[in-house]
Amino acid sequence: MYCISIAYPKKDGATFDFDYYTKKHMPMVSGLLGANVDRFEVRKGVASPDGSTASFVCMANIWIKLFYEFQVTLAKHGKEIMGDIPNFTNIQPILQVDQVVVGNFW
Amino acid sequence: MYCISIAYPKKDGATFDFDYYTKKHMPMVSGLLGANVDRFEVRKGVASPDGSTASFVCMANIWIKLFYEFQVTLAKHGKEIMGDIPNFTNIQPILQVDQVVVGNFW
Repeated sequence: MYCISIAYPKKDGATFDFDYYTKKHMPMVSGLLGANVDRFEVRKGVASPDGSTASFVCMANIWIKLFYEFQVTLAKHGKEIMGDIPNFTNIQPILQVDQVVVGNFW
Repeated sequence: MYCISIAYPKKDGATFDFDYYTKKHMPMVSGLLGANVDRFEVRKGVASPDGSTASFVCMANIWIKLFYEFQVTLAKHGKEIMGDIPNFTNIQPILQVDQVVVGNFW
């Protein structure tokens, strides 16, 4: 199992519309990835363990079955996906693909 | 549902022992958190979407039921948990607590 990790780092003047993100953006991305998606999750950064503001405003994951299929989707629809980002945030996300080493979803 | 997000950023000369992390560290932390743990996952950063090295060598999550209980555990065992980090990596992790906004585990 692979997993796309998306992290939105905090910054001064950051805005993030969780409603748009969860109801429009993520379902759109998930739809484009199609049968390759196992599931997705969106999380709101609450706090760092020392009580200070969380380093990331939002962290999201999309668990996928095939890395190659994701690359194909990204090549085809990357522009459309990235073009939707200004509709919910002014933060530039950090994106990466992970391999699940330990977890419920192999 | 809450989730502890742990991210190990890449750096020059970074070392990370996934074997120790998955077999010793995470089970130890999970054991200290006890019944508050729903599940945990460890992921190895494979690549950024553009093919460059992943921003984070390792990303891990521990889904928990109660934020307060986590704080209690951290106050009691934080030193022990942090003290184990040099046994598997020379990277200083970014830690934060997230609230699950959308996901399978509410």
